[in-house]
Amino acid sequence: MATQGQVITCKAAVAWEPNKPLTIEDVQVAPPQSGEVRIKILFTALCHTDAYTWGGKDPEGLFPCILGHEAAGIVESVGEGVTDVQPGDHVIPCYQAECRECKFCKSGKTNLCGKVRAATGVGIMMSDRKSRFSINGKPIYHFMGTSTFSQYTVVHDVSVAKIDPNAPLEKVCLLGCGVPTGLGAVWNTAKVEAGSIVAIFGLGSVGLAVAEGAKTAGASRVIGIDIDSKKFDTAKKFGVTEFINPKDHDKPIQQVIVDLTDGGVDYSFECIGNVSVMRSALECCHKGWGTSVIVGVAASGQEISTCPFQLVTGRVWKGTAFGGFKSRSQVPWLVEKYLKKEIKVDEYITHNLTLGEINKAFDLLHEGGCLRCVLAMDGLCKF
Amino acid sequence: MATQGQVITCKAAVAWEPNKPLTIEDVQVAPPQSGEVRIKILFTALCHTDAYTWGGKDPEGLFPCILGHEAAGIVESVGEGVTDVQPGDHVIPCYQAECRECKFCKSGKTNLCGKVRAATGVGIMMSDRKSRFSINGKPIYHFMGTSTFSQYTVVHDVSVAKIDPNAPLEKVCLLGCGVPTGLGAVWNTAKVEAGSIVAIFGLGSVGLAVAEGAKTAGASRVIGIDIDSKKFDTAKKFGVTEFINPKDHDKPIQQVIVDLTDGGVDYSFECIGNVSVMRSALECCHKGWGTSVIVGVAASGQEISTCPFQLVTGRVWKGTAFGGFKSRSQVPWLVEKYLKKEIKVDEYITHNLTLGEINKAFDLLHEGGCLRCVLAMDGLCKF
Repeated sequence: MATQGQVITCKAAVAWEPNKPLTIEDVQVAPPQSGEVRIKILFTALCHTDAYTWGGKDPEGLFPCILGHEAAGIVESVGEGVTDVQPGDHVIPCYQAECRECKFCKSGKTNLCGKVRAATGVGIMMSDRKSRFSINGKPIYHFMGTSTFSQYTVVHDVSVAKIDPNAPLEKVCLLGCGVPTGLGAVWNTAKVEAGSIVAIFGLGSVGLAVAEGAKTAGASRVIGIDIDSKKFDTAKKFGVTEFINPKDHDKPIQQVIVDLTDGGVDYSFECIGNVSVMRSALECCHKGWGTSVIVGVAASGQEISTCPFQLVTGRVWKGTAFGGFKSRSQVPWLVEKYLKKEIKVDEYITHNLTLGEINKAFDLLHEGGCLRCVLAMDGLCKF
Repeated sequence: MATQGQVITCKAAVAWEPNKPLTIEDVQVAPPQSGEVRIKILFTALCHTDAYTWGGKDPEGLFPCILGHEAAGIVESVGEGVTDVQPGDHVIPCYQAECRECKFCKSGKTNLCGKVRAATGVGIMMSDRKSRFSINGKPIYHFMGTSTFSQYTVVHDVSVAKIDPNAPLEKVCLLGCGVPTGLGAVWNTAKVEAGSIVAIFGLGSVGLAVAEGAKTAGASRVIGIDIDSKKFDTAKKFGVTEFINPKDHDKPIQQVIVDLTDGGVDYSFECIGNVSVMRSALECCHKGWGTSVIVGVAASGQEISTCPFQLVTGRVWKGTAFGGFKSRSQVPWLVEKYLKKEIKVDEYITHNLTLGEINKAFDLLHEGGCLRCVLAMDGLCKF
């Protein structure tokens, strides 16, 4: 492409400081260095983790930065030594890398690749420990190794999943975070078996993906717990079979669930990020085998607690990141499952806006009616 | 036997109230009712759980009671409907029952049988919800469904493991609690694989059994952590390869271990019952897959806590009771393993006393040099 090896100036939403509205800026995006890929982002969704960092709750959050980590695009150019993708490839940038070489990738026990974490955790690229984003020479930090709120971004090659070019990018961008996180929490982390009773705390996108995962795994009952009863109708479509609003009960919610399930659920999932709910999720599990998976991200410094007897009597407390999926290997597989209509994606998209409307999109994220808002990066932007 | 169907008067150590020395009393032991077995206890060991309840820390503790749960004996008589054992059988009473019929037993996921828990938890027998122990008509509570600090005890038939009559009862009494708990924590709960790095917090009998379990599982490094460095020489014989005394370090012990192991251990075991150590045990585990098993029993009301990020990044927090062993099925198997010299038992016995010396035995339990003290119930008792 004509832009190869050149600095590209494009539009990006910049977070200058916590909680201040993002502003659309002309950003300079440097060419990819060795082991890097520059991607033209076509669609990005917003996720609560973006809002979390933007809200100043992430101790690793660095400003100014370009947020965004749930997106899809087309490779514009690649740096030296990059062989797995080439310009024109359709890709999903992955905040969880997969190098296939590090201790983590080789373990066979985790998807938490360690190769580029030391750079992505501090908003820079590995090769020269600098940012590829700048405005008039002033560097702007990367975020989660993805920074998809920009028309062009640069990522490490170990963070790029090449997908079927037939997949609609305006849909499969969701496979960059929330949907895989929920499905994988069920399939990979909990390994829910047919006939299981499942409880899901929080019926946002991730909770609904957990519900779909539980349904496809053959769960006999899928109990959705949320303080917004309006979410139940939608949740039914994703597989939730029963709904409990904690506000309708005086007893602790874990007791309500234990009473309803002859001793507790087989698997529970916390999809909110509330440490008090994490405790309820553990304690509503059945003695002897109940497993609780923490999916939500709690604010920094907050702690979970329980009585150790809960664990000594057989409950298991786990967590998941990106649902345990190996990103480069399995995101393409998830795209195929979507194309074969084996998993939902379209149904999570409640709003479509443009990059220029990103602050409105953040507002929507906090409203009950919004699951995922997808931003078109090109086209009729209201910059 | 001549005593069948009769009340037997025998010696027992009675705990009249928390922390008051036990007294040896003439106790009346009623005949076994339907589904019950009366056992002549020949040898009993002391375990920290006895001391825990005696010390008033167990919210379920009821007084007056007859403590004791790690013992071996011979069946004296059986109640109606008891078919699995008969008078003369050598047995180990099991505080963890195994009925093979309840939801728990049938699940295949846990050893926590629920059948008699509602009675054993409140110091009585299921059939008539009364105690079989009394002194001049005043009932004395059972403890853990075993009450082995008595020359005769009555237990539910689902709580009796029939063992090889060739096994020395003065040794295999230890297979009633501590040794299986440690071995099973490794083999059943954690499922440690060959080559793993293991950390053990607390090098008492249970911790040493964990070490032996880890060694037989092929662990590459077994790190023992204890504030009493004198324990290391003994620990080496059970499989501990490295020793850390937290008092020798200024840094938090979890950080010391993470530094020594290139990121943390694969498996850790808390064998003390200290909630602060339970946190250290979790946090010294390797990101991505490290699993921590709580084996120790914490004082009532105490809570464990950690940052949820510890779990979201792949650590798993579990617990174990009786090492996950199904008591009636697997205690006999452990006895066979002992007879084939595949597991240690003798090496845990540091002291031999008689029932009459039980208060001295409790004192020994709190001294560093004592692992297990076995009491002979007959013979030269100093009543």
